[in-house]
Amino acid sequence: MFIELDLQSEVPIYKQLADQLIEGIASGKLSSGQPLPSVRTLAADLGINLHTVNKAYQALKQEGFLEIHRKQGVIVQPGSLPSADEAFRERLRRDLRPLAAESAARGMSEDELQELLLSLYRQIQNPSSQGGTSP
Amino acid sequence: MFIELDLQSEVPIYKQLADQLIEGIASGKLSSGQPLPSVRTLAADLGINLHTVNKAYQALKQEGFLEIHRKQGVIVQPGSLPSADEAFRERLRRDLRPLAAESAARGMSEDELQELLLSLYRQIQNPSSQGGTSP
Repeated sequence: MFIELDLQSEVPIYKQLADQLIEGIASGKLSSGQPLPSVRTLAADLGINLHTVNKAYQALKQEGFLEIHRKQGVIVQPGSLPSADEAFRERLRRDLRPLAAESAARGMSEDELQELLLSLYRQIQNPSSQGGTSP
Repeated sequence: MFIELDLQSEVPIYKQLADQLIEGIASGKLSSGQPLPSVRTLAADLGINLHTVNKAYQALKQEGFLEIHRKQGVIVQPGSLPSADEAFRERLRRDLRPLAAESAARGMSEDELQELLLSLYRQIQNPSSQGGTSP
């Protein structure tokens, strides 16, 4: 898989893994219904603890991005992906707020901040075009 | 002070405190050189541990948002605030990335996401106008 973990980061490993799986779904690298490695296999591949992989998978199952079946194993949500509902927007606002505040305190303009977010969003949705001007 | 902590939140208390102090600086509620309560006073006011307040103050000192003096005590940076330098932008990109990815995976458009960020940014810089159209 395409997962790259930074063991030095202050971001917990299970969260890095969950974030990258969600990014894989956002970019289309992971498609609807696609099987993912078992907890055991992915833990061995990444050289991390079984519990860490399990925690990431369970969190994504909880959110509705994955399904975990006894026979099929772990698959990307084959039905509708979870939506940007009010609960998500509330969490998004809460998580964005300190980033917006620190950007403002450091004198970053709203245009600069929006541009940075936009370029990230496009890079995630279209990872092959490395920051070039899109058609 | 204007600090409101959510003891149920998964966000560590020291980070909530540091975030709200930075937001206070961004909004102008806290002005350059303004004295802040001592660690002991703020801990007592908020009903939290001395070490938690100290951790927040030290983190903000480290970043250059506060100064801590033996005699004057804790004051908001009286000189230039830290800038949105490349190290900050790097951290900002890292922290925004999973939020942008999950927004995309949940089908939120780039316009919606930008609008949400913009409204937060403006609300932070101008907390008195509660989401009204600014002039």
